[in-house]
Amino acid sequence: MRLVDKAINYVKAISAETITNAKSGHTGVALGASTILFALFKDHYRFDISDTDFLNRDRFVLSAGHASALYYTLLSMFGFNVSLQDLKDFRKYGSKTPGHPEYHVTDGVEVTTGPLGQGVANAVGMAIAENKLEERFNSVGFKIIDNYVYCLAGDGCLMEGVAQEAISLAGTLKLSKLILLYDSNDVTIDGNLNIANRENVAKKFYSMGWNVIKVRNGNSYSACTKAIAQAKKANKPTVIIFRTTIGIGTQKEGTSAIHGAALSQDELALLKEKLKVKESFYVPNDIRELCMVSARKGKLFHEKWNQQLAIYSSTHPELYKQFTSFFEKKNINYEKILKNESKWAGESLRKINGYVLNEFSKELLQIMGGTADLGPSTFAVIENGGKFSAGNRRGRNIHFGIREHAMGAICNGIALYEDFMVFDSTFLAFANYMMPALKMRAMMNINVMSFFTHDSIAVGEDGPTHQPIEQVSQLRNIIGLKVFRPCDARELVAGYKVSREQNGPISFILTRQGVAPVENTSIEKAANGGYVVYSNSDKPKVVIMASGSEVPLAVEVAEKLKGKKVSVVSMPCQEVFDMQTEAYKEKVIPSGADLYVSIEASNDLSWLKYFKGAGIRVAVDNYQCSGKGDEVYQNAGFESKNIVKLIEKKLSTTKPKK
Amino acid sequence: MRLVDKAINYVKAISAETITNAKSGHTGVALGASTILFALFKDHYRFDISDTDFLNRDRFVLSAGHASALYYTLLSMFGFNVSLQDLKDFRKYGSKTPGHPEYHVTDGVEVTTGPLGQGVANAVGMAIAENKLEERFNSVGFKIIDNYVYCLAGDGCLMEGVAQEAISLAGTLKLSKLILLYDSNDVTIDGNLNIANRENVAKKFYSMGWNVIKVRNGNSYSACTKAIAQAKKANKPTVIIFRTTIGIGTQKEGTSAIHGAALSQDELALLKEKLKVKESFYVPNDIRELCMVSARKGKLFHEKWNQQLAIYSSTHPELYKQFTSFFEKKNINYEKILKNESKWAGESLRKINGYVLNEFSKELLQIMGGTADLGPSTFAVIENGGKFSAGNRRGRNIHFGIREHAMGAICNGIALYEDFMVFDSTFLAFANYMMPALKMRAMMNINVMSFFTHDSIAVGEDGPTHQPIEQVSQLRNIIGLKVFRPCDARELVAGYKVSREQNGPISFILTRQGVAPVENTSIEKAANGGYVVYSNSDKPKVVIMASGSEVPLAVEVAEKLKGKKVSVVSMPCQEVFDMQTEAYKEKVIPSGADLYVSIEASNDLSWLKYFKGAGIRVAVDNYQCSGKGDEVYQNAGFESKNIVKLIEKKLSTTKPKK
Repeated sequence: MRLVDKAINYVKAISAETITNAKSGHTGVALGASTILFALFKDHYRFDISDTDFLNRDRFVLSAGHASALYYTLLSMFGFNVSLQDLKDFRKYGSKTPGHPEYHVTDGVEVTTGPLGQGVANAVGMAIAENKLEERFNSVGFKIIDNYVYCLAGDGCLMEGVAQEAISLAGTLKLSKLILLYDSNDVTIDGNLNIANRENVAKKFYSMGWNVIKVRNGNSYSACTKAIAQAKKANKPTVIIFRTTIGIGTQKEGTSAIHGAALSQDELALLKEKLKVKESFYVPNDIRELCMVSARKGKLFHEKWNQQLAIYSSTHPELYKQFTSFFEKKNINYEKILKNESKWAGESLRKINGYVLNEFSKELLQIMGGTADLGPSTFAVIENGGKFSAGNRRGRNIHFGIREHAMGAICNGIALYEDFMVFDSTFLAFANYMMPALKMRAMMNINVMSFFTHDSIAVGEDGPTHQPIEQVSQLRNIIGLKVFRPCDARELVAGYKVSREQNGPISFILTRQGVAPVENTSIEKAANGGYVVYSNSDKPKVVIMASGSEVPLAVEVAEKLKGKKVSVVSMPCQEVFDMQTEAYKEKVIPSGADLYVSIEASNDLSWLKYFKGAGIRVAVDNYQCSGKGDEVYQNAGFESKNIVKLIEKKLSTTKPKK
Repeated sequence: MRLVDKAINYVKAISAETITNAKSGHTGVALGASTILFALFKDHYRFDISDTDFLNRDRFVLSAGHASALYYTLLSMFGFNVSLQDLKDFRKYGSKTPGHPEYHVTDGVEVTTGPLGQGVANAVGMAIAENKLEERFNSVGFKIIDNYVYCLAGDGCLMEGVAQEAISLAGTLKLSKLILLYDSNDVTIDGNLNIANRENVAKKFYSMGWNVIKVRNGNSYSACTKAIAQAKKANKPTVIIFRTTIGIGTQKEGTSAIHGAALSQDELALLKEKLKVKESFYVPNDIRELCMVSARKGKLFHEKWNQQLAIYSSTHPELYKQFTSFFEKKNINYEKILKNESKWAGESLRKINGYVLNEFSKELLQIMGGTADLGPSTFAVIENGGKFSAGNRRGRNIHFGIREHAMGAICNGIALYEDFMVFDSTFLAFANYMMPALKMRAMMNINVMSFFTHDSIAVGEDGPTHQPIEQVSQLRNIIGLKVFRPCDARELVAGYKVSREQNGPISFILTRQGVAPVENTSIEKAANGGYVVYSNSDKPKVVIMASGSEVPLAVEVAEKLKGKKVSVVSMPCQEVFDMQTEAYKEKVIPSGADLYVSIEASNDLSWLKYFKGAGIRVAVDNYQCSGKGDEVYQNAGFESKNIVKLIEKKLSTTKPKK
């Protein structure tokens, strides 16, 4: 037996035993895709185990996240910081080998995966990022950036719409560094793939501008490694269709029964016998050495790259300077961003954001992003930034097409590649198309900004399908996502500040309509999430809270509440406010008021958590009809007279507190 | 000029003027797709304006919902209950011609559209429903059901993942009655389509098993009508690629500037001059008569169909009986469904739902549905129901593949076709993949059931990507969607009862893990949404509320709170509870308690609305790690001892109420 074949047998045995030991996991893909991934790791995947964050490393995305046991086994064998003991702790509470790969938990893992299809789109994002830097910094004789992005996907990933959207865009953009390893075993949980899917996958990829390579025997090491070598030469993205057998070597091979099951001890013993592996969780020295050859090759590459960079610094001093400062967290004078603020008064927040984004984009070259075909509507466009395209890798504006879900997941990939300040943008009503991508970026705590415009029922004539009512709430429900709904330019800039100073994703919620200017707002205060913008007493009896376009309305209401002690809290970001000290929060929303009022054109109930006594929630609890924005807004009760009446009525029935 | 060409000119002029008059709307597609839709309405679309709900009518879905002005113009001209005055009221508050087509608002409109891509998947669902009934009830010489499903989609719809998922499934299922009219104008909001999409659409459809027809001139009536006639003969789904010009006839034709804009009065005048239309909102008699020929043809068809059905009733009495009773709301003895209840005690709710679904499916033949490749895991499978496939139209189980979003939108289409009791199913963690479809069904108030299983962090080893934490809350945020999280078989059956007795969609939230039986639950009481299952006093001082698997835990906590007056409220469905009388609600959750406690393994804040004083929310506010279900659940605080401690601590700091 060749050493490589012996090694693959050990990969299979250890992966299967890892699952059996945990009594939980997915044996099917762990065995079926083992040859593909071993060939990748051994011969192609460029990594440096002594510096796994090395910028010009290859990226690998396990889109089929349920192949985690196989992945951990390979990481362990190739010298990443994953021990055999970690494999024994697979899927145990608190281990670094969780059920699906998790970013920041396991050395070498580039992205959290599990929800199918996401990884394919993440990989497209990484390939965009790679291409961008390659074009920006490489020069004749200097390949500063030239890594590949590999992604393992199964039948499941490829059925998902998010993957299809991303694949279509990747073909359009001719992302030649992207190599999709398709583990084609024709078996899913429900049984044979053809009950749900009879496409000609190769032809489908061709139609989308991809290079297609077919490997008839995905269990042959030589065939796998040859195919990957060939893919690397293509001038467009490549899918390699590896024909494999799910759960190969087990008694249930080729059937859905092996997909999500652990082998019993007896079944495992039979498999190991077949594989000629006697030991448990053990890697023989010859195999370890084989793997270390690849690991050393990666380390050596990194060293040579460092040398190359040193030469580059003297031959291309200007480029080198740009390169090393590209991802720098530059100090920004936020007040200066607002230099034209007075000219923006009364404009819509989407438009103001267009100005603000462009101010930042002048300072921070790492800003890039795009919209789901709504540039002229959301204004999230970098002027003179150019279109990112097959012919223009320098472009800073990505035209995602009408593909919100892929847009979200692709931006995750760009942020994962390196610390770009990346943004996506669509109407708030369509944020629900990209919910899974938003959740994944929150879970990974990566820096992606969303600009969601047309942020309330005030969108008007487009009607209820375009009215975001539940979206603000749905976004706030995502743990780790900051939802920032500014009332003016100052608060908007505060959101950028928060985004830059704290890690994690942020979603800006921006009006379509012009908004009245608000007094007493400030960047510094708004960066606390919530603060008082109006008050006629130290001990207000009525505390009104609002966000975005409802803040000026709240102030109007306060001013009309004659003879009442009132304060108005502008709350652009609950998540940030909730992180403040108890003392600060108590100062902004004091206990002991007679009435707490929230005003927000959404159906979010989260305001209730700030009510420290009787309360009124002015909200949108029903779909509204199509009509002029103002009319819809006012008919839904967002009108100062109406709210004053509600407050006065409630106060008359509420016992005043001492 | 031929009369048809004159008619199309009027369609264009009226559509454009409708938009100009409203100063809002999408002139581009209204003009560009006018010839296609006029040809469809005149020569192919089968409808009866005197009975627009006629079962065997064709279905038309305007997936490109922004073409609403064109659609309303055609509905008006062909005799539907849409007047020229209604066109003048386009997009006005409360009119029956809203910004995008809305189901139940406008005569003839089959489905609410606007969010792109949804309509394509809805149409696939309608074609499944048609096929199912066709196979079930047609007999030699009797075409009881033989209608077509037409769908107009643009470049935007086809980029959306939800459409791509549905298209792939439609090809697999060979849905020959489905005809997709693709308005291919190569222009989107951001500009030329090729900046975001360079696929070969025809080849892509071929690869997915579709019939493809190309119409080079989509502005030629003869070419359009011929292509549709040809499509009707295919034995697989057909896409007709009509090459059109966005905003044809205007000065901005062929550019994105005309996409979402209204023409100015001057531009409109120029267009009308070109079209030789002098009047405003006027249909000349010869055109009106031309349209009425089609309308009368439809009415005649319906009459003949009635005659055919009368003959069928005597030649095929058994089939006729089945046909007329197929959608009947049969009386169900809900208690009888539970005849095996005792055997199910302690099983998981997903498994119990498998039993319950099958009991109902025996009684109600209109039940059909499926899962996103998770049949063996969610148990939402009709035993002996067969697989719905190209070869077996009788199958009741649809294998959607790993395409959650399309699944949701396809089920909407099935429910829209006629009153099937249709269900979809996946893990709760992946409900976010189908959020837009869930919103659309809620907005349309149609009857679709979802079975979302693996409903909390107790899913265990699969880890945080598979832990639904925010999903229950996100679903509850959708206005009009009932979220039903039962604690046992009785409550589960109550959910079916609610679903059958009240209109609108429902999502069942079901455990992966076995649940302890709960005393005092009942179908009748649970059908009120919330009710008391445990109480040791008429005037409880501690009111504990919970749903699903947390109900037995709540009872355990109550029993451990020695010497305290406690009640436990099981709240399977907040939406239904909220509809009860104030008196009922006050009885279940009385004012005046010292403490209100909610226990639910989600991060939902909606429980706060039931706190009538001091409260404790036992919830999941962070992602949990991968590990054994029990362990994760308990470590997150879902453990009676811990909760008792929290309650006692809080009580000791809370002033008791009189």
